[in-house]
Amino acid sequence: MAFKTDIEIARAAQKKPIQEIGAKLGIPTEALLPYGHDKAKIGQDFITGLKDRPNGKLILVTAINPTPAGEGKTTTTVGLGDGLNRIGKKAAICIREASLGPNFGMKGGAAGGGYAQVVPMEDMNLHFTGDFHAITSAHNLLSAMIDNHIYWGNALGIDERRVVWRRVMDMNDRALRDMVVSLGGVANGFPRQTGFDITVASEVMAILCLASDLADLERRLGDMIVAYTRDKTPIYCRDIKADGAMTVLLKDAMQPNLVQTLENNPAFVHGGPFANIAHGCNSVIATRTALKLADFVVTEAGFGADLGAEKFMNIKCRKAGLAPDAVVIVATVRAMKMNGGVAKADLGAENVAAVQKGCANLGRHIENVKGFGVPVVVGINHFAGDTEAEIAAVKEYVAALGSEAILCRHWAEGGAGIEDLARRVADLAEGGSADFRTLYPDEMGLMDKIETIATRIYRAGSVTADASVRAQLKAWEDAGYGNLPVCMAKTQYSFSTDPNLRGAPEGHTIPVREVRLSAGAGFVVAICGEIMTMPGLPKVPASETIRLNDAGLIEGLF
Amino acid sequence: MAFKTDIEIARAAQKKPIQEIGAKLGIPTEALLPYGHDKAKIGQDFITGLKDRPNGKLILVTAINPTPAGEGKTTTTVGLGDGLNRIGKKAAICIREASLGPNFGMKGGAAGGGYAQVVPMEDMNLHFTGDFHAITSAHNLLSAMIDNHIYWGNALGIDERRVVWRRVMDMNDRALRDMVVSLGGVANGFPRQTGFDITVASEVMAILCLASDLADLERRLGDMIVAYTRDKTPIYCRDIKADGAMTVLLKDAMQPNLVQTLENNPAFVHGGPFANIAHGCNSVIATRTALKLADFVVTEAGFGADLGAEKFMNIKCRKAGLAPDAVVIVATVRAMKMNGGVAKADLGAENVAAVQKGCANLGRHIENVKGFGVPVVVGINHFAGDTEAEIAAVKEYVAALGSEAILCRHWAEGGAGIEDLARRVADLAEGGSADFRTLYPDEMGLMDKIETIATRIYRAGSVTADASVRAQLKAWEDAGYGNLPVCMAKTQYSFSTDPNLRGAPEGHTIPVREVRLSAGAGFVVAICGEIMTMPGLPKVPASETIRLNDAGLIEGLF
Repeated sequence: MAFKTDIEIARAAQKKPIQEIGAKLGIPTEALLPYGHDKAKIGQDFITGLKDRPNGKLILVTAINPTPAGEGKTTTTVGLGDGLNRIGKKAAICIREASLGPNFGMKGGAAGGGYAQVVPMEDMNLHFTGDFHAITSAHNLLSAMIDNHIYWGNALGIDERRVVWRRVMDMNDRALRDMVVSLGGVANGFPRQTGFDITVASEVMAILCLASDLADLERRLGDMIVAYTRDKTPIYCRDIKADGAMTVLLKDAMQPNLVQTLENNPAFVHGGPFANIAHGCNSVIATRTALKLADFVVTEAGFGADLGAEKFMNIKCRKAGLAPDAVVIVATVRAMKMNGGVAKADLGAENVAAVQKGCANLGRHIENVKGFGVPVVVGINHFAGDTEAEIAAVKEYVAALGSEAILCRHWAEGGAGIEDLARRVADLAEGGSADFRTLYPDEMGLMDKIETIATRIYRAGSVTADASVRAQLKAWEDAGYGNLPVCMAKTQYSFSTDPNLRGAPEGHTIPVREVRLSAGAGFVVAICGEIMTMPGLPKVPASETIRLNDAGLIEGLF
Repeated sequence: MAFKTDIEIARAAQKKPIQEIGAKLGIPTEALLPYGHDKAKIGQDFITGLKDRPNGKLILVTAINPTPAGEGKTTTTVGLGDGLNRIGKKAAICIREASLGPNFGMKGGAAGGGYAQVVPMEDMNLHFTGDFHAITSAHNLLSAMIDNHIYWGNALGIDERRVVWRRVMDMNDRALRDMVVSLGGVANGFPRQTGFDITVASEVMAILCLASDLADLERRLGDMIVAYTRDKTPIYCRDIKADGAMTVLLKDAMQPNLVQTLENNPAFVHGGPFANIAHGCNSVIATRTALKLADFVVTEAGFGADLGAEKFMNIKCRKAGLAPDAVVIVATVRAMKMNGGVAKADLGAENVAAVQKGCANLGRHIENVKGFGVPVVVGINHFAGDTEAEIAAVKEYVAALGSEAILCRHWAEGGAGIEDLARRVADLAEGGSADFRTLYPDEMGLMDKIETIATRIYRAGSVTADASVRAQLKAWEDAGYGNLPVCMAKTQYSFSTDPNLRGAPEGHTIPVREVRLSAGAGFVVAICGEIMTMPGLPKVPASETIRLNDAGLIEGLF
């Protein structure tokens, strides 16, 4: 049997008209705003009309710390949705949209893989329904209005050195990281240093993903801090009077997108905030809408459970009033081996001891997630080279912790390969054993929140922070921001801040180098390491080989 | 009777599903890619299948030199399309898409006005089907790849001081006009001075509007000159290997958009290049597709006939093998008065003498357009304050030139108010009297082409240009670009380069200050005055008052 690539499988998909997919969830045709024949936005009026319906069960898919071996979190999310539908459950998935920029750097950006994919893959990796373009436009309108305000007399007294609102572009373009703008004399404004971030790093993106409706969106946009005066008084987006026009630009983007899996099950794909300086989950409005329409909603969070699940629980669920009914932690034998010290080149050889050693990473995540009061099951995403002994080692390790690890073959077999996990997840979620609790209360101090995450989730021995960082946190508490959750920006590769420290380290130190206030999104970002908000292209970017072939098909994008 | 605003009329429109509009032209539902229920793109495969069909009649709507009084060119284009349909002709219109940026500066951007509008107006003034966002992304991908090439060793030997490819944004943002990028040290590249233009000024926009299909698009993108080496050897987009990926980004944008008029007649709205540094017409692919599907296609060109019609004939028609069958020149009594010396504040008072004097501007345009071998009719776009004597003065003046001026009330009455003009246009176009010829042959020298336009269209006495400009033109001729048409960038308010010189001046001097080569679009730009490629926002931009009201409707955008 010839091996098919992801894109070959995706192109062979027997897609159904998006209206038929919507009908599976009871969405009438007129409530779907089609984008082509296989994508649609769900109309705001229809969403508003759902508010008194009961919610379905919410399943979070998270993972061990990512390794170069790959863990397949999105693939498992897609597969689990298909598996639940196969066992007769009315299920939908909720995932994030892809960022355009990185697709032109490295290959990749697919939505799932193998026989667990969301389609149309090409569109999802290009402009899709234009949401990210709308976010870019809204963000940069505010930027233009800030410089325009300064140009026309600066009535608000903005300190040009303290404009914290940068510009954004959905592109990997290192040349835009650091620049001096408004050169060229009197007609062009007051020169100042600034730069561009990639669009997914925009606070507007985080807000779109946390806002409950357009009114909430507008309020949050208005709350964003864009600059400071010389005496450090904050200037808000509202002061610039950009919040109304930005909301108009985001009106369509706020409506969730509906597409389908290869097995023609509904997939909500909406929003895509960074998982470091933001919370890394799809939009609240998509998750809420899916919960009103499906009995089971499978969603995922960025990176490993130490970052992604923690933020899903402490930021998204807290702020949106959501509570997961079960959590799936995705692991692979290969990733366990790498956590156990095996190099990527040596992953082909059976190594049960390394698997056992690497399971410490998985065990830590299981323990952490259970701490949120939610039942956990492990999904082992099967790779062709996994041996029975290695798989058994993972299962035994997890069983010893009082949980269960279930082998899943959705990559090779689609929904049929993940029915066991689907049944277990359905049982857990319907069993009602979940008793969700966040890790810390709103009223805990900001530094205490950071320390709580660091010690309870990362198992750090201590947190260090300069006096200036502590003073800044104190100042924000005094200004009324003390009740916000904390968004940790840390390497995704380790529980520590050292990306090479795999497994389950403890007693390490978490240095908080910088803190930022996302007053509109509603969280304080604690930066523990280098965070890149504008990527660059590699020496030979994928864009050099991306093209349309003679058949009009896209080559090189995947 | 209460007076209704444009937006009130547009919102009261009884829109039909876009599939019904497509059906009027014989477009099957599956060939329409819907964007919501009232917009669609026409599929490339369907367009390809039309190539052996005969063409309908092509009608160009152009105008006198614009004045602050307004002439209503788009309104007349829309009205004439409706009028032709009312008298039983199968007609479609082709107009340009609106740029997002300027809508946040000054009020405006509507597609037509009164009862001669294209809908959905809100969408058309916001993201529409995302074409301009796609152009922005494609343009800036090339920019990122150029700086990335320099960063990774600069194998092509690009002189960083001679990168002529800037970046673009669909925003009025003067702070981006002139900047130094790649600051911040080794990791961010080599600092150099550059800037952003507004998206409609991108050569990618001009190319999208002139390309016949995706293969032609890719070839033209590859032909663009992006930089020079130290010895002034041009570096092409093709050398950067960006042309393939840019084509992928533009794949959907190349498909024309279909919307409808208030009277449910088909409207193609596609592309929107600047009318100064580019040719200012909607896309060739939209015009050609419309000609295959309708018996009459009404289109317009930017600014007055001295710029817009001249470029339509000498660039678009020449390059696309199109030939107009009739031309409508739009005039208003108010604009004639302003051309006759009346100030805007005094337009309310009858002034037949001023109308007669101002008609010189109209007369010049009639004579010029006739020079292209195409029959001409004048449409007087009626305003409420026009007096019978003033209207009669225009008609008499035009009659004395051997043409006809017809009063049109489409703004107030829709298609019913413009039936007389529609009948006359149909007669002219069907009469077969058109014998289209361009103003100059391909093989004429570049400087001679400029002088031909200046003396024959602008009626200048002379053209001045520095030796460096003449040497540059000569160098391009030697490099094989001598057969390109010339794209004049000049004030739209006068036949001369003095915007205050109304009427029909002659014997003036046209100074060519700068020339630019758009090697991919396929024209040489001759800049005769200050051309702004990145607008700024006014002191109180419209964006400060644009918002969603409590009913969810957009306020302040129109």
